[in-house]
Amino acid sequence: MTFSRRNFLGASGTMALIGASVVSGRTQAASIPEAATMKEAVMQPPLVPATGPDYNPVVTLNGWTLPWRMNGDWKEFHLVAEPVVRELAPGMVSHLWGYNGQSPGPTIEAVEGDKVRIFVTNKLPEHTTIHWHGQLLPSGMDGVGGLTQPHIPVGKTFVYEFLLQKSGTFMYHPHSDEMLQMAMGMMGFFVVHPKDPAFRRVDRDFVFLMAAYDIEPGAYVPRVAEMTNFNMWTWNSRVFPGIDPLVVAKGDKVRIRFGNLTMTNHPIHMHGYDFKVSCTDGGWVPENAAWPEVTIDCAVGQMRAFDFVADNPGDWAFHCHKSHHTMNAMGHDIKTFIGVDKKEAAKKIRQLVPDYMPMGTAGMADMGAMEMPLPENTLPMMTGWGQFGSIEMGGMFSVVKVREGLAAGDYKDPGWFQHPEGTVSFEWTGEVQKAERAPADLLETSQNANLVVVKPGSKPRNVNHQWRNK
Amino acid sequence: MTFSRRNFLGASGTMALIGASVVSGRTQAASIPEAATMKEAVMQPPLVPATGPDYNPVVTLNGWTLPWRMNGDWKEFHLVAEPVVRELAPGMVSHLWGYNGQSPGPTIEAVEGDKVRIFVTNKLPEHTTIHWHGQLLPSGMDGVGGLTQPHIPVGKTFVYEFLLQKSGTFMYHPHSDEMLQMAMGMMGFFVVHPKDPAFRRVDRDFVFLMAAYDIEPGAYVPRVAEMTNFNMWTWNSRVFPGIDPLVVAKGDKVRIRFGNLTMTNHPIHMHGYDFKVSCTDGGWVPENAAWPEVTIDCAVGQMRAFDFVADNPGDWAFHCHKSHHTMNAMGHDIKTFIGVDKKEAAKKIRQLVPDYMPMGTAGMADMGAMEMPLPENTLPMMTGWGQFGSIEMGGMFSVVKVREGLAAGDYKDPGWFQHPEGTVSFEWTGEVQKAERAPADLLETSQNANLVVVKPGSKPRNVNHQWRNK
Amino acid sequence: MTFSRRNFLGASGTMALIGASVVSGRTQAASIPEAATMKEAVMQPPLVPATGPDYNPVVTLNGWTLPWRMNGDWKEFHLVAEPVVRELAPGMVSHLWGYNGQSPGPTIEAVEGDKVRIFVTNKLPEHTTIHWHGQLLPSGMDGVGGLTQPHIPVGKTFVYEFLLQKSGTFMYHPHSDEMLQMAMGMMGFFVVHPKDPAFRRVDRDFVFLMAAYDIEPGAYVPRVAEMTNFNMWTWNSRVFPGIDPLVVAKGDKVRIRFGNLTMTNHPIHMHGYDFKVSCTDGGWVPENAAWPEVTIDCAVGQMRAFDFVADNPGDWAFHCHKSHHTMNAMGHDIKTFIGVDKKEAAKKIRQLVPDYMPMGTAGMADMGAMEMPLPENTLPMMTGWGQFGSIEMGGMFSVVKVREGLAAGDYKDPGWFQHPEGTVSFEWTGEVQKAERAPADLLETSQNANLVVVKPGSKPRNVNHQWRNK
Repeated sequence: MTFSRRNFLGASGTMALIGASVVSGRTQAASIPEAATMKEAVMQPPLVPATGPDYNPVVTLNGWTLPWRMNGDWKEFHLVAEPVVRELAPGMVSHLWGYNGQSPGPTIEAVEGDKVRIFVTNKLPEHTTIHWHGQLLPSGMDGVGGLTQPHIPVGKTFVYEFLLQKSGTFMYHPHSDEMLQMAMGMMGFFVVHPKDPAFRRVDRDFVFLMAAYDIEPGAYVPRVAEMTNFNMWTWNSRVFPGIDPLVVAKGDKVRIRFGNLTMTNHPIHMHGYDFKVSCTDGGWVPENAAWPEVTIDCAVGQMRAFDFVADNPGDWAFHCHKSHHTMNAMGHDIKTFIGVDKKEAAKKIRQLVPDYMPMGTAGMADMGAMEMPLPENTLPMMTGWGQFGSIEMGGMFSVVKVREGLAAGDYKDPGWFQHPEGTVSFEWTGEVQKAERAPADLLETSQNANLVVVKPGSKPRNVNHQWRNK
Repeated sequence: MTFSRRNFLGASGTMALIGASVVSGRTQAASIPEAATMKEAVMQPPLVPATGPDYNPVVTLNGWTLPWRMNGDWKEFHLVAEPVVRELAPGMVSHLWGYNGQSPGPTIEAVEGDKVRIFVTNKLPEHTTIHWHGQLLPSGMDGVGGLTQPHIPVGKTFVYEFLLQKSGTFMYHPHSDEMLQMAMGMMGFFVVHPKDPAFRRVDRDFVFLMAAYDIEPGAYVPRVAEMTNFNMWTWNSRVFPGIDPLVVAKGDKVRIRFGNLTMTNHPIHMHGYDFKVSCTDGGWVPENAAWPEVTIDCAVGQMRAFDFVADNPGDWAFHCHKSHHTMNAMGHDIKTFIGVDKKEAAKKIRQLVPDYMPMGTAGMADMGAMEMPLPENTLPMMTGWGQFGSIEMGGMFSVVKVREGLAAGDYKDPGWFQHPEGTVSFEWTGEVQKAERAPADLLETSQNANLVVVKPGSKPRNVNHQWRNK
Repeated sequence: MTFSRRNFLGASGTMALIGASVVSGRTQAASIPEAATMKEAVMQPPLVPATGPDYNPVVTLNGWTLPWRMNGDWKEFHLVAEPVVRELAPGMVSHLWGYNGQSPGPTIEAVEGDKVRIFVTNKLPEHTTIHWHGQLLPSGMDGVGGLTQPHIPVGKTFVYEFLLQKSGTFMYHPHSDEMLQMAMGMMGFFVVHPKDPAFRRVDRDFVFLMAAYDIEPGAYVPRVAEMTNFNMWTWNSRVFPGIDPLVVAKGDKVRIRFGNLTMTNHPIHMHGYDFKVSCTDGGWVPENAAWPEVTIDCAVGQMRAFDFVADNPGDWAFHCHKSHHTMNAMGHDIKTFIGVDKKEAAKKIRQLVPDYMPMGTAGMADMGAMEMPLPENTLPMMTGWGQFGSIEMGGMFSVVKVREGLAAGDYKDPGWFQHPEGTVSFEWTGEVQKAERAPADLLETSQNANLVVVKPGSKPRNVNHQWRNK
């Protein structure tokens, strides 16, 4: 066992403690914690604290929380930066850079007031650092290579130490060859729970980070210098239908937290509810300052958490609202066939995308015939199969599944929602007539006594309409 | 007249009513309402309610509100999804997909607490659905093809039924082959008026949706797989100078509502006023939570309404602030001629764009000579003619015209603003001298006793300036 | 000396004053103020008011404030629109259009309630106007060419007159051939200080505008029709390492104001602090309505000011969080070499970018060997040298330098931060072991009594975990 010069200085008592965030105890550590690793992109159980302050741990979509150990009054973590193989969805893997076996790296969870010591081992082919996005800490622990610390050379381990001054929603990522390293998938979530267990507590708390990759069909490594034309839009480096559903018990208080490390805004939309932002990477949003939303725009380098009470059971689509971001790679070079000979168009598109049904007059029946091979290691553009047919989505799409009677802590996929009788849109089999008349004509000739009739120029109630002359 | 299996079940009394949003009365409808259609992109008069709760109806720019009928206590609407021909501006039409003869479809207006039944007939060449963006409703009425209902096959009519649980600003669009169908123009506005007629009531209420198309000069059908490089940025599938002006009486309380179904944020900017967001697609914004703005950034899949009191008469530019979005198609391939031989540059640009004046030393006088043909079915890059010359805009641009003495309900274009004497920027015909001196020199040598003189290093009032050494 | 027709009308007493914003005194001016000019992109001292209302003047990064003169009760300014040569950073100049010798133009500062008269002389090769973004003023002073005034012909001077109705954060730019003129760099800041000197007063107040240019390596003139693929992302038409640091005394109340005239959102991120938006171009944000943030997304045509108390000393990175926007031109065509033969890749990249170290196993030692010539007038992709090595950034990046003991008004670069002992991330030289075990295994076999152990299905405290079956 060797000691670094800094450790030696600490041990010899010459290290002055300056500033509120500076913490002591460095020399007690004669070893560093084992760095757990993960082979699969499978959601792991939340790490419920058995000792220490009580809190509700988060669940990382297709991911996990990093175990730690206590060393005196320090909470010690170990991250290993390294090349990884990440399955983006069944049928496609990508060669990325990440931490501890996966991209994104494991979620770090701790509690307001904790002193954390994080060991970072660099097993990449180039130098790196970690910046603790959103944390208040000493300048030298901020992780900006060249500016606040030396870059961590290949093969070396560096130590970060700081006090968690506030609870909230944070992330970590390199600040060293930054564009390339983030384009390769290096990032992870960092949640600091409030010291007060009741403060804005929820029952279920999901987290994910957004990353964009540009991987040519058939390739495995992202193009790292792309600025706009990405083709894999991911949550926790996964695409639909490979993204975990968000399983929630009816009545639960639910929080969903996300951060954006792509190159463009992502407007995150959830069906069936309205909700408010409760937390950003800057802190907790005062409840009176929040707006009701159904789509929360998350800018690059921003994080957002929103809360809702799950009072409306169902299968609720949850996705980025940019429609290209709910497409996988093959969606980005399709030509327009509309207005062109239909049979030829259908044939061409089916060669590319088995699930695709742009002409689908025969609906499901057509699907069986569409079985054409894709390039190696490539996902179809739109995919995912629901109880009513193809969902025709990819990329940043998942389903919030709200069910009655789920036990606390039960995150098992409950299958598709059983709709109560009479609550699903249904086919009308009566006669259908489309008027060839404009609304004004239709209104004037209507026989329906209940119809609201308005004539331009008339004076119904409180408005005198002098209509614009054309 | 036939009954569907579901109707039969309802009629036989076996349909249980479960959940607050589930509504009864399905079987009373033995027919469906005629689906009015519209041939022209011309703003129609607002539909003022003659019976039922009082509200101030909205005005749809270059559009209209869908008539409905009452059937028992149901408000019944009929939408027909179909290919349409939309005039984007005089001189250019596009072959889109829309509803009831136009893209966007007609605006749906109803009142908080209404039970609505909406028949959707599919006359497209492929299947479709409608998602009621922002509405709180049963999962099976949410319109996500495959997930919450079967896709509506070609030629079929489906029925959606739900209770309008809250007032607000909503829209409808397909959730079925979504990227393609929205890229073809399928969308419509949906306003739910408050049950309380006084709640945040305004005098004028304008609505539009933003769509982007990629239509090559000379073509008629959009390219449907484009992600970033659109060339037609539209409000209600119209571009300047084809977009209606927003005509307002001085003193009116005005609301402008819009939604974004393009692939990028649109920062909507209005001149002459500051204003606040009053409503999103998630609900009404508490007045204390709103910020003063002159540019409201509307993300994709978001809707925003902002309010102001029209106390400042004039012609106020109203536009997306991304300068490419106030350009029409021809603006996107122009080369840089600056610094190149001027005559040659002017000649080349004039061949492309008659209105263009990049070298315009002679101002208006030059314009007469610029008459070169455009490709078929293509708009010039910058166009529109005001009382003072060319406005040099296209795309997402219109004018808010605030006038004294307009009657309520008068939306006629009042022509250009008559500026009060002495309130228009004017030419200075005196001598003009530009100093060759830097500001510090200029200040020190000034003879003007009123000039504010500051010397670096001096101590005026409360600041000791030690200026940075270079 | 000649008088314009308008002046004559004014002198003869026939000019009626109509509306609150209309101001008199036009004819007193028999001359116009000299238009100071600036040769260098070097930050100038703030102009502290020696007379008139007291306020804390702003500091313009790499820029200056325009001197003015008093003429009766008018504050008179003179802007000259003209071609300029702007140094983007040492080693690269660009031929832009701007005002008074530089792009952006000088910052205009005045006080709420001031009557301002601004002379605008057009020395460009084409017509122009100026729009006073965010100001409340008469429609004819709004600067929209064609709509509210004639375009200002080449060689002519126009006069704008208006009352500053409110304090706040504004800008000016052309509304005439707008896309081209802004793509060429025409813009400037406009700050209106509150009449009440104590209102939201800060100690240091920095301002800058964001512009994007597309300048091919080796070229000098931007391509003016680009919509998305810009390669020079600038603050006040400067890129890192050419952007001034923001020097701040510990304990100062600090405000940073910026506006966006590019074609995309910029999420502005500052390390080491959280902060709130205090002002937009629409006005002051109520303190209760603001959110804590570490990244403020600024849409196109928006302005944002944020405030913080500088209580955390250090060198704090301050940048746009889109990683491509902290890259200079050469970063946008780099191919992916990851996984390819390393030596070949390194050689190719070094030919392009001397500072680049994608394979940098040898860290700093490698740097000496990387000295390959760049094209003429081109900046390396990533550059800037800190006390710990290369910062590997470009574009929209600077450093907020918070220091103890700085005098008020001292903006000199204080050099690099001297970190207190023990506050910099340091190398661990002990043994490093990475577990080949997943976290669940690691937790179960741990010997550490302090380790938080959680088993799926167990019931620690308040949660019953039934874990999802795979």
